[in-house]
Amino acid sequence: MALVNTALYDAMEQGDHSTLQRLWLDSPDTEVSCVHPGWPVLRGRGEVLRSYALIMANTDYIQFFLTDVEVSVMTDTALVTCTENILSGAPAEEEGQLGPLVGQLVVATNVFRRTEDGWKVWSHHGSPVLAESDDDEPGGPEGPADDGLLPG
Amino acid sequence: MALVNTALYDAMEQGDHSTLQRLWLDSPDTEVSCVHPGWPVLRGRGEVLRSYALIMANTDYIQFFLTDVEVSVMTDTALVTCTENILSGAPAEEEGQLGPLVGQLVVATNVFRRTEDGWKVWSHHGSPVLAESDDDEPGGPEGPADDGLLPG
Repeated sequence: MALVNTALYDAMEQGDHSTLQRLWLDSPDTEVSCVHPGWPVLRGRGEVLRSYALIMANTDYIQFFLTDVEVSVMTDTALVTCTENILSGAPAEEEGQLGPLVGQLVVATNVFRRTEDGWKVWSHHGSPVLAESDDDEPGGPEGPADDGLLPG
Repeated sequence: MALVNTALYDAMEQGDHSTLQRLWLDSPDTEVSCVHPGWPVLRGRGEVLRSYALIMANTDYIQFFLTDVEVSVMTDTALVTCTENILSGAPAEEEGQLGPLVGQLVVATNVFRRTEDGWKVWSHHGSPVLAESDDDEPGGPEGPADDGLLPG
């Protein structure tokens, strides 16, 4: 199960859009959904797969170091949570140069559905981690303190 | 199904922790998970329910206006995405005064599992929306431009 989760990130790293198309659930009865960090909800294969094409077009280099991968399975549904330690580079302004590398800490909840063709992605929700998880008490009703900064 | 989703937010609004305990899945085989906006992943009933107690203790007033509620059901699993338009107030510094009200735009993916006792929350993932969803092209590999601001 964790292997399918890894495959999702491998496809992103390799800019392999056709593998992404294969990994995302394709069912007439069920609409997939996707939230990229800081984005609104995207719904349906068309919208979701276009967003990945857009991200890939704007990314020269991306690497995911997954940590804290936890899998919870109930019959035909699997829920994976993980931390995405992302290192990425946008296309450079000038050809032949490498764009600036950026580190990002993101947590994700990925929902998979078992099909005849294996486990498929039903939902991906990624969000930026804005505060440390240790004893700092996060303020606000549903969020960290306003002065929360990206770690690292 | 959407009613159970609403019940989750009603319980938050009313600071009703015992209803939250009843709504969250309680299964020996399955660990629940929860991501509040900007937070790391919380796992297990103990950690998740403690986080709600903490949020409630730091919130004098909170109201959720849910929009874009979409439900996707496959047998015993339901996936709900929605936009949480949140208006909240922290406790005032001085007794008898109202704390400052804050508006927040959050998107959520909520996963529910059907049990003998009705639908229960398996996972909640909420994240801040940092960019508009219209034609603005978000920058970065997995996130909006750094200058993305909370709308409103």
